[in-house]
Amino acid sequence: MTSFAWLKGHGTENDFVLLPDPEGDVHGTLDAAFVAGLCHRRRGLGADGVMRVIRTAALAAKSGDPAIAGQAAEWFMDYRNADGSVSEMCGNGIRVFARYLAEADLVDPTGPVPIGTRDGVKVVTYDGDRIAVDMGAPTLLPETKVSVGDRTWPARHVDVGNPHAVAFVDDLADAGTLLDEPGFDASVYPEGVNVEFVVRRGPLHVGMRVHERGSGETRSCGTGAVAVAVATAALDDVRPAEAANRCAGGTYRVDVPGGTLHITIRPDGHAVLAGPAEITARGEMTWLG
Amino acid sequence: MTSFAWLKGHGTENDFVLLPDPEGDVHGTLDAAFVAGLCHRRRGLGADGVMRVIRTAALAAKSGDPAIAGQAAEWFMDYRNADGSVSEMCGNGIRVFARYLAEADLVDPTGPVPIGTRDGVKVVTYDGDRIAVDMGAPTLLPETKVSVGDRTWPARHVDVGNPHAVAFVDDLADAGTLLDEPGFDASVYPEGVNVEFVVRRGPLHVGMRVHERGSGETRSCGTGAVAVAVATAALDDVRPAEAANRCAGGTYRVDVPGGTLHITIRPDGHAVLAGPAEITARGEMTWLG
Repeated sequence: MTSFAWLKGHGTENDFVLLPDPEGDVHGTLDAAFVAGLCHRRRGLGADGVMRVIRTAALAAKSGDPAIAGQAAEWFMDYRNADGSVSEMCGNGIRVFARYLAEADLVDPTGPVPIGTRDGVKVVTYDGDRIAVDMGAPTLLPETKVSVGDRTWPARHVDVGNPHAVAFVDDLADAGTLLDEPGFDASVYPEGVNVEFVVRRGPLHVGMRVHERGSGETRSCGTGAVAVAVATAALDDVRPAEAANRCAGGTYRVDVPGGTLHITIRPDGHAVLAGPAEITARGEMTWLG
Repeated sequence: MTSFAWLKGHGTENDFVLLPDPEGDVHGTLDAAFVAGLCHRRRGLGADGVMRVIRTAALAAKSGDPAIAGQAAEWFMDYRNADGSVSEMCGNGIRVFARYLAEADLVDPTGPVPIGTRDGVKVVTYDGDRIAVDMGAPTLLPETKVSVGDRTWPARHVDVGNPHAVAFVDDLADAGTLLDEPGFDASVYPEGVNVEFVVRRGPLHVGMRVHERGSGETRSCGTGAVAVAVATAALDDVRPAEAANRCAGGTYRVDVPGGTLHITIRPDGHAVLAGPAEITARGEMTWLG
């Protein structure tokens, strides 16, 4: 039982335990049971995920994975879900990861910073309290539908690397209680779907609730906010019909239960997710659980 | 921003942050906003409460409170709720507190150990994985009723220092979803009530769910388990009617969502709450939240 460094942080209340391990000699292969223990909200510190902060070169050498070795980024976000499983990418997570890198003087925040992930290199930028990450180019897909109880709404299918169904509702309370499991078209989403319920709050301004596949309703979801912005932009789009499968531009304010995110849809179709990211505690720990 | 010692622990998934501060010179008067931040399940480490580990003499000197100074216990559980407010006592909390005292070699666990609380001195005993605490003598009161949705059940009113209504149901699922707020008789419980739903599982063995006043459904509740044992013992009681307002004896196994507790009702009417108590992590921390 050795002591190791840790930090706790969150972005719009998506929360994470960070484990600085630059050379990969502290946490080995990052044991799933250890991660699940740390993330357990009663036994551990509680978190939506764990992010090991490791040099890309060190993880490449340990893993022998050429897809990691080839990434042009000094630092790599070695991300695990709360159950200990590996995940490619987390939009709010990488913003908290980037906050740590800057606060620890490991990167120069005056310019764009590349960060390695299992979904490839992501580029973050710092703007005061906000940290932004280029989430790539989402894809707009045809209309589908979602339901809660005996109510059904049309929904837009948006692919942000993971699948989303975005439904516009009159009132976010219509989306039901925290326990309701939304219904969806399993032929469209054979592996399940993240469901967003959205209300208009003004020009370029919406509010949302999200039900994450496998997690239930959560306080925030970075890819969900991107999907909502893309679906809203599609409705706002006044461009010719032949461009309707591409994303319209603009910056959307998206209120999530845990705070506020801003999503900019660039002319090249990339979505940039921006918002607060905060480190709330740091220290040393011996894990006994 | 100075670094301080911390531990995380839980008893049947009631969880706590412990702050060792023997002389009371680390945390001052234990600021409510700091406690609430530590307990926040997204921003902080997440906990049902914070327990400062302080010498009774040190807290008595700092507070000038004769009710603390008069307690014959070396160590005092300076307990705060998750919102930062002061609370007198916590049955699962004091068992975790006692686990820390023993693991840190601050007490001799081979005999009974007195611990100071704002509800007076409590005595804990160690029995392998289990730690037991004398919760005092609960009081059986007349029958009342509770309801969920359009269903109503008779319930036994039990006072364990705080008010409880114990309802026997056919199926714990009948107690509704996590979000349902039980109804109760406000003339009996003007300041609200903790509601327990109970099923029989065998001789001296019950299962329960609990809805805590102000907190909603929780994973465990020490006083709730005591109330359930007392109400069950009253039903099991075969003594003469004139003794019916006293608690019957025996040791009851009470399954809570977060684990298993054992409650012994002694011949003098005192209830002893026993169960697991575990420290899962310890370290140093700088709080930045």
